[in-house]
Amino acid sequence: MDRDAYLERLDATTDDAADLFEHFERRSVAGRTHHVLTAARHGIERGTVIVEEADVVVRGYPSVPRILVLDTGVPSFFEASERVAIEEKLDGFNVRIADLGDPLAFTRSGFVCPYTTDRARDLLALEDFFADHPEKTICAELIGPETPYTTHDYASVDSHDFRAFDIRDREAGEALPVPERRELCAAYDFGQPRLFGYAEPSNAVPAVRDAIEELDAAGREGVVIKSADGATMVKYTTESQHHDELAYAFSLPFDYGRDFVFSRIVRDAFQAAEFDEDDDRLQQRARDLGESILRPMVATIRDVADGEPVGDRHTVRGDPDAIDALFAHLHDQSMTIDLEDDRLEDGDRVVEFVKVAESSRDRIAHYLDGGLRHE
Amino acid sequence: MDRDAYLERLDATTDDAADLFEHFERRSVAGRTHHVLTAARHGIERGTVIVEEADVVVRGYPSVPRILVLDTGVPSFFEASERVAIEEKLDGFNVRIADLGDPLAFTRSGFVCPYTTDRARDLLALEDFFADHPEKTICAELIGPETPYTTHDYASVDSHDFRAFDIRDREAGEALPVPERRELCAAYDFGQPRLFGYAEPSNAVPAVRDAIEELDAAGREGVVIKSADGATMVKYTTESQHHDELAYAFSLPFDYGRDFVFSRIVRDAFQAAEFDEDDDRLQQRARDLGESILRPMVATIRDVADGEPVGDRHTVRGDPDAIDALFAHLHDQSMTIDLEDDRLEDGDRVVEFVKVAESSRDRIAHYLDGGLRHE
Repeated sequence: MDRDAYLERLDATTDDAADLFEHFERRSVAGRTHHVLTAARHGIERGTVIVEEADVVVRGYPSVPRILVLDTGVPSFFEASERVAIEEKLDGFNVRIADLGDPLAFTRSGFVCPYTTDRARDLLALEDFFADHPEKTICAELIGPETPYTTHDYASVDSHDFRAFDIRDREAGEALPVPERRELCAAYDFGQPRLFGYAEPSNAVPAVRDAIEELDAAGREGVVIKSADGATMVKYTTESQHHDELAYAFSLPFDYGRDFVFSRIVRDAFQAAEFDEDDDRLQQRARDLGESILRPMVATIRDVADGEPVGDRHTVRGDPDAIDALFAHLHDQSMTIDLEDDRLEDGDRVVEFVKVAESSRDRIAHYLDGGLRHE
Repeated sequence: MDRDAYLERLDATTDDAADLFEHFERRSVAGRTHHVLTAARHGIERGTVIVEEADVVVRGYPSVPRILVLDTGVPSFFEASERVAIEEKLDGFNVRIADLGDPLAFTRSGFVCPYTTDRARDLLALEDFFADHPEKTICAELIGPETPYTTHDYASVDSHDFRAFDIRDREAGEALPVPERRELCAAYDFGQPRLFGYAEPSNAVPAVRDAIEELDAAGREGVVIKSADGATMVKYTTESQHHDELAYAFSLPFDYGRDFVFSRIVRDAFQAAEFDEDDDRLQQRARDLGESILRPMVATIRDVADGEPVGDRHTVRGDPDAIDALFAHLHDQSMTIDLEDDRLEDGDRVVEFVKVAESSRDRIAHYLDGGLRHE
């Protein structure tokens, strides 16, 4: 690979190709070599992929910073002169779909997910879109109860679907302005996250708060606030999302609990300090928080005691070959899978499975057997 | 220092003196050099101190393992043939008091605390004890509301006092058998933790559970279960201790929250799985847990917003010179201290002060100003 040429195309913040390329990993995908950046480095996003044989760079999706206090956070993040768009943030699986001869769906960390690729080809008008815009990337969430990664229920999605939340230049990573992107998605009939509206940064906060309260009441995740030109963005989430994530993390405590818990509490506490002037509301939030943490963990301890399987339960539905490829992909990622059900419905293969959470299962069994904890 | 000679006296699990002694740190205490082991290594406890000029080794206090499930933990930890003693575990400051010419109080990490030393000389008959037992170490908790380290209230302690929970061989670290130790402490009128009784491991669990329920109702920490010969021990704590520690940690969230939170939740969840067969009781525990976490953190966020000081608040009472030495000692440990009150009462100096929690104060101020969080 001509590293210096790619260094220049990537516009990295280092002049030393070795400095950047030591963080790339080689993976073989459908007979081609993908060079994948495994962590953000030198101004280049994690998950950036170079496929030399296709002369393609697929830029990683940037990490989105978070504000903990709306009232000061929104006006200080954006320039006073810009307009911002308030859009819903969905709880799904974030992929970038790019055309490398055939369209491929790349995960955040730069893997090609065969199942998501197959679903995107089936559900989105990718041929039309890439015929017109070959050098763009569609950034979309795979959402719904039947995906191999997330299971959040959305009222309008029975199985799974996509919502396109960004269209970016494949190589440079620059996003389209929000109004233009929304029009383009509409033109190809791509589902989109809800737009709550546009505002000046100085008066956006009440609109964001209204959106957050409405989303919280519906058990939805939160918002992304973007400059209308698409260049900058910041996220903010609902109480129900914090508690749902804690409930998930503590259902598999020794896999996710430690990593999840502190950050979600921090988000919830700053939101409480800003929103919960009423002590009853603070008390209700605190109690919900405690129940989100303790009940799922106690339930899992009891499951282990009863010999029940412990892990993430998922259902997937789609083309039989794509589902085979999905399980090969999960296997490559060293996951232990328990198949619970595998059937055909209207030509689709439908599989229910558990990603076994070995750390939680084994640590809990150890303590239940009277094992020691050294802290 | 003759490292090989000390290596042999310490009975370490390595033959290479350099391997062990690279983990020792030199500190100067009252004109003598203390060599202090800063982390447990090669079978030697953290906080082990060698003072060559006094030809003395003060063995560190061992780390006490914890069980999370009483029913299986007690019988599997102890030999079926031993007797165990169930003693209260107190929430205080663990020191080892040893005679190095003068008696000195060593902290868990091997520092000499001048204040605790002065208080021990004042409150315990150390001259008598060390005249009879020069090569023993008294292991004691400094407890009560007026200490520079902990503030847990005990009904019988107005200001501060000691409770001796172990007497060990200074150099070899071997503990006296529990009955002998309790008699010896009584002979010198040392306060002691409560003894709930002795039992066989196979039938100790109901007695431990009764002790835990009684201690929990009184807001006390928990128990240490020891083999009657003093050789092995294991600890187990109350729900109120878990929640109190979380409340403390989240009152200073960016100093202690991340380190404390997961382990206390784990303890509480296993206890809930074992104790809370009744769903109302589980619900009450979960709600208490949530309130323990969220309310103190929200209160501290509001304190920072109001410009109030943020930190650990303590009161100390004692000899004016010893209190000067205490503040010099805290200063040496890079603590920022805010003096809130400083007065004389009946010849004692009484100082109220705050150990400023800079991380919590500064991180909270950052987020309140609209600062970003990158996760």
